[in-house]
Amino acid sequence: MKTALFIGRFQPFHIGHLDVIKQALKENDFLIIGIGSAEDNFLPDNPFTAGERFGMIRETLKNEKISAEKYSIVPIRNINNYALWTKHVSILLPPFETVYTGSPIVKKLFEKEKKYTIKNSKIIHPINATLIRTALLKNADWEKMVPPPVAKILREINGQERMAITTRP
Amino acid sequence: MKTALFIGRFQPFHIGHLDVIKQALKENDFLIIGIGSAEDNFLPDNPFTAGERFGMIRETLKNEKISAEKYSIVPIRNINNYALWTKHVSILLPPFETVYTGSPIVKKLFEKEKKYTIKNSKIIHPINATLIRTALLKNADWEKMVPPPVAKILREINGQERMAITTRP
Amino acid sequence: MKTALFIGRFQPFHIGHLDVIKQALKENDFLIIGIGSAEDNFLPDNPFTAGERFGMIRETLKNEKISAEKYSIVPIRNINNYALWTKHVSILLPPFETVYTGSPIVKKLFEKEKKYTIKNSKIIHPINATLIRTALLKNADWEKMVPPPVAKILREINGQERMAITTRP
Amino acid sequence: MKTALFIGRFQPFHIGHLDVIKQALKENDFLIIGIGSAEDNFLPDNPFTAGERFGMIRETLKNEKISAEKYSIVPIRNINNYALWTKHVSILLPPFETVYTGSPIVKKLFEKEKKYTIKNSKIIHPINATLIRTALLKNADWEKMVPPPVAKILREINGQERMAITTRP
Amino acid sequence: MKTALFIGRFQPFHIGHLDVIKQALKENDFLIIGIGSAEDNFLPDNPFTAGERFGMIRETLKNEKISAEKYSIVPIRNINNYALWTKHVSILLPPFETVYTGSPIVKKLFEKEKKYTIKNSKIIHPINATLIRTALLKNADWEKMVPPPVAKILREINGQERMAITTRP
Amino acid sequence: MKTALFIGRFQPFHIGHLDVIKQALKENDFLIIGIGSAEDNFLPDNPFTAGERFGMIRETLKNEKISAEKYSIVPIRNINNYALWTKHVSILLPPFETVYTGSPIVKKLFEKEKKYTIKNSKIIHPINATLIRTALLKNADWEKMVPPPVAKILREINGQERMAITTRP
Repeated sequence: MKTALFIGRFQPFHIGHLDVIKQALKENDFLIIGIGSAEDNFLPDNPFTAGERFGMIRETLKNEKISAEKYSIVPIRNINNYALWTKHVSILLPPFETVYTGSPIVKKLFEKEKKYTIKNSKIIHPINATLIRTALLKNADWEKMVPPPVAKILREINGQERMAITTRP
Repeated sequence: MKTALFIGRFQPFHIGHLDVIKQALKENDFLIIGIGSAEDNFLPDNPFTAGERFGMIRETLKNEKISAEKYSIVPIRNINNYALWTKHVSILLPPFETVYTGSPIVKKLFEKEKKYTIKNSKIIHPINATLIRTALLKNADWEKMVPPPVAKILREINGQERMAITTRP
Repeated sequence: MKTALFIGRFQPFHIGHLDVIKQALKENDFLIIGIGSAEDNFLPDNPFTAGERFGMIRETLKNEKISAEKYSIVPIRNINNYALWTKHVSILLPPFETVYTGSPIVKKLFEKEKKYTIKNSKIIHPINATLIRTALLKNADWEKMVPPPVAKILREINGQERMAITTRP
Repeated sequence: MKTALFIGRFQPFHIGHLDVIKQALKENDFLIIGIGSAEDNFLPDNPFTAGERFGMIRETLKNEKISAEKYSIVPIRNINNYALWTKHVSILLPPFETVYTGSPIVKKLFEKEKKYTIKNSKIIHPINATLIRTALLKNADWEKMVPPPVAKILREINGQERMAITTRP
Repeated sequence: MKTALFIGRFQPFHIGHLDVIKQALKENDFLIIGIGSAEDNFLPDNPFTAGERFGMIRETLKNEKISAEKYSIVPIRNINNYALWTKHVSILLPPFETVYTGSPIVKKLFEKEKKYTIKNSKIIHPINATLIRTALLKNADWEKMVPPPVAKILREINGQERMAITTRP
Repeated sequence: MKTALFIGRFQPFHIGHLDVIKQALKENDFLIIGIGSAEDNFLPDNPFTAGERFGMIRETLKNEKISAEKYSIVPIRNINNYALWTKHVSILLPPFETVYTGSPIVKKLFEKEKKYTIKNSKIIHPINATLIRTALLKNADWEKMVPPPVAKILREINGQERMAITTRP
């Protein structure tokens, strides 16, 4: 069984993330979706809790009719020692061989471990979460950048207010 | 959707744990299976890594033909402050209303939060993981206490050796 | 007995903080004064130790003839998980029902817990600690922004030098 | 002003602790009462939270008509490095010169710092908290070992149940 | 250049440890001597600080006329995740290929990393540090189990008293 | 024996650092070279691991024909409490009396401990590591700022790539 890891902070989960998941599921039998910085929340760069992000991903994949037999969602806390981080991740998870990432440092760190294949995610929607957080704060045009179930959750938990209170004046 | 949490250390996952999962899935729409003390491993009371325990649970539920649409497996690290622990758990996970546990302290701590229903798990197989770890160390009669996929994993990772090196002489 | 919490970092304690304490003591029987980020010190935003800040508050309230029967001063360390922070605070302290704060995030976090009344502190002296730290570094006009006992302590521990060594060039 | 520190875990606060406080208040102008291991709770040796212990001490001293002008109660968390512990304590608190303790290791660690006077507390009531916790679990004869306000709190929070759930079987 | 690691807690450093160092220096060009559990001290199993243990090793090797060109002494703190520990060690140190250890778990953990040669240390003096700590507490016959410079240090820092205060009654 | 401490982050080790070591070795019998922030790595301000920095220093001193009898290299992790930091350092190391530093805050913190002599390092090469990291990223003129063995290591581990992946875009 070919197993891959896709790790991100998903602050929030957006349509670019969904593209990567679809690509990874075509190329593998099983995908572990790791929610990074799981214990960070109510911060400008990390506004949403791990539980909120878990819900965003699960509702989106359900809405996309992607079978839960194909993936697991796993919150992974940060540790303040990057050189140790890939090992920390690998101990928490079942074995995987392939890593999907757009981040140069995550790419390099897993490459150094020698035993992983690193795949660059094809960029279909050139979106990043920083843009969305900025748009969310202004309540301007953010909805089209996230899947509909994420938009629904962001309205329910009041994403604009969340950004406003976490932004240092 | 009725969602429940079943949290344990699963050192290792055994047939009593499987009974609780089956009961909980009858009484709920979705079950979060929390792997407690996720960062403890190679210790007498916590010999297996979170990743190994994740594999034991997933292989068993697959073997039991339980649909992955019905559950998520989530490693949860310990924090050294029990009164804070239920909140820590609730932040990492999507919302749940019911908690299955056989542990008096977990029961009490979730009761204090007021918003959870606590269910005692019916004991069908009166087994505990301590017994299994002791049997594993002696390589005596442990196989019948764990589901077949767990027995397979314990042989592959050499569970007896694991217990032997983690036991302080 | 009506008990309230006023939590701040008090870097340093200033006349705006004293206003809030006086207001809270009029509206309650007992006030817990929580010194936040208690283990941060010798940093640009957190130059003074918890012990130094404890002294600033105690000497000021004594000077104001406010009875010690009415308040407790309690250092509270930070934890790097905001969603967990209010619970962390509530475990360390005797029960309280009301929270005084000017911070939108502290307001929101305690509101989410449902069981607290949040009071905005009336602003009489529109002062903030950032201004004072900047003034302290330049040794310019900071004294009128702090109560006399704080000014005395800041001279004794050499607040200007403290700011100078903690400021990254 | 002569200031002293009395540090203990107060699990629970008992009449021997009260004796030390009375002695220390005779010999000093101000007493800091440090609640050690403040973040430990729901454990066999540390069953009560810092907030519960804070309440036990405050209610007792109020009942004894000891003026709050004379003392402060401060929760102090543990750090896992004993040689660093006295320094950790001294940073969180206003200056003190004298330490009251019955513990040989606390005595030695403060002696090594050179600048503190160590006082052995006179033992009037030869009681220790371990005895009380054991009695509490059996609900046998524990009430006479604690001041009346502590007995009241222990009944309210159900101290016997607390001990029962924290005791590993 | 052949580089090896010898890691131990050295509580205290004894003649069995010295045997291993001599063996390792014959078989390698350079030896890293790792002081494990470096931040533990004043505890029954870990009575001495990293600095004290550093001194014991350095004075002994100087006394043995072993050139400092051949070794480095490095304190290494513990992390509470065994499966992560070998990686943590390898990040703190220059590269090494061989590990000397008498501990089954350290042996196994480095073996799992695949890239290290594990050497069992030949036992010439069948001594262990637990015996010495027990003897130290009774001040009975411990001196012959440690090199003379260690005996000198243990007398200077009063090793018997150290054991007495760290022993839980 | 006169023992001194020189503590820095050495990100990377440069010719200004080497000047200080030469000066300190003239004025003392033994020098402890402390690698600060030892567990930080792959970060813009802390790109290199403790092990990599350890190698840079050791290879340089060997190249300079400085006897290893005269110094020890010791990685020291950061703790997030500055007022506690000097004590943390002193517990990990054998005794020292003199501290070499160019940092105003390190100077002040050791001065407060009263028992250390603080020496300003004479500045012969007015270089700082920030400049080198910036030059490394641009691969422009950094080689003359570091000793030849450090230049060799930076080429081997690809210092330019390291800076590129750690720089936030």
